Amino acid sequence: MVSEKTIGRLSLYRRLLAGLLAENRQNIYSHELASMAGGTAPQVRRDLMSIGYSGSPAKGYEVADLAESINSFLDNPSGTRAAVVGAGNLGRAIMSYFESRRPKLRIAASFDNDPNKIGSEICNRPCYDIADLKTTVARMDIRLGVITVPADIAQEVGDKLVDAGVTGILNFAPKRLHFPENVYVEHVDLTTSMEKVAFFVRSDTNPNAPEA
Amino acid sequence: MVSEKTIGRLSLYRRLLAGLLAENRQNIYSHELASMAGGTAPQVRRDLMSIGYSGSPAKGYEVADLAESINSFLDNPSGTRAAVVGAGNLGRAIMSYFESRRPKLRIAASFDNDPNKIGSEICNRPCYDIADLKTTVARMDIRLGVITVPADIAQEVGDKLVDAGVTGILNFAPKRLHFPENVYVEHVDLTTSMEKVAFFVRSDTNPNAPEA
Repeated sequence: MVSEKTIGRLSLYRRLLAGLLAENRQNIYSHELASMAGGTAPQVRRDLMSIGYSGSPAKGYEVADLAESINSFLDNPSGTRAAVVGAGNLGRAIMSYFESRRPKLRIAASFDNDPNKIGSEICNRPCYDIADLKTTVARMDIRLGVITVPADIAQEVGDKLVDAGVTGILNFAPKRLHFPENVYVEHVDLTTSMEKVAFFVRSDTNPNAPEA
Repeated sequence: MVSEKTIGRLSLYRRLLAGLLAENRQNIYSHELASMAGGTAPQVRRDLMSIGYSGSPAKGYEVADLAESINSFLDNPSGTRAAVVGAGNLGRAIMSYFESRRPKLRIAASFDNDPNKIGSEICNRPCYDIADLKTTVARMDIRLGVITVPADIAQEVGDKLVDAGVTGILNFAPKRLHFPENVYVEHVDLTTSMEKVAFFVRSDTNPNAPEA
């Protein structure tokens, strides 16, 4: 079983490799990839071994081939369909990032309760009425839900997604949500991230600041 | 020295307490706060002790008083000014969340290179030319920078922020940035979060899924 942290790093490696490919790089050593990813060479080698990949000590890894191997490992061959619930700024940011980047991960729709958005296209995808969430998600065979609604309705939205067959949730609502065991949930708490930085900005709290 | 993880949890507790205050709750026990925060009661008690706060075994914590204590601990009394660089969907999502929520943490401006945005107001704050980043940030006494620009210009933007006096950076660009030791950096990698969920959505990869 490959760990969650390894999956996260593989996702990062593949983006770094895409950048190298765009520059026509042929080969890369584990220590170079490690430095780009903010990790160590042994960790890169372990991560890639865990998906059955090893480089040559003389030439390192072949960039294109390694990127392809990570793709086959991470991506569902038949594709994954996702939906964004809450078509505000954050929802649109996620949609526009994934619009054409990952053929195997397709955000197929968004949901909102704003009559001006319902029935329109947002980031080239239909925006549906959140009141029809359960039936529409089931009909479209959507398996991944991105929750960008306010905290007070986030659990309700999540429950409907799960009832409709969703087994993975990326939650941005500032509230811890609870789901059955078979549902994989990732919480991203942007407020906490921002407030942590705000705290450590101060020279009297920053652990690395020079002595006053 | 209070740890980064504790700071993150304090930020979460204070949001949970704000919700309780809105419901006119007077008191709360550590195990209740722990359950809302997805942690344990001893951890809550340790976190609050680390800022010199302790509840009574009989009545728990006073909600309003505890919220106030966390505020005084986390917030800089003279306030912190922040700027968002890259006024796209994600930048606007961050700005609109913080627009009126934290009097002591003020996003004072945004920066972009789009002529249609420069000179306009975005989320009720002026949007400036990214070409003037360094001078404007220094003049406005901005200490926290939120980077929501594409990866290829993120380091350059970060360097200018730091040159202008910024000591805390929240980076959303999918690239690891490097700064002097006294700069506190938090990386938020939304693509990795999304791709992790996409991986674990599949029943054959979800560690908790029932056996097929």
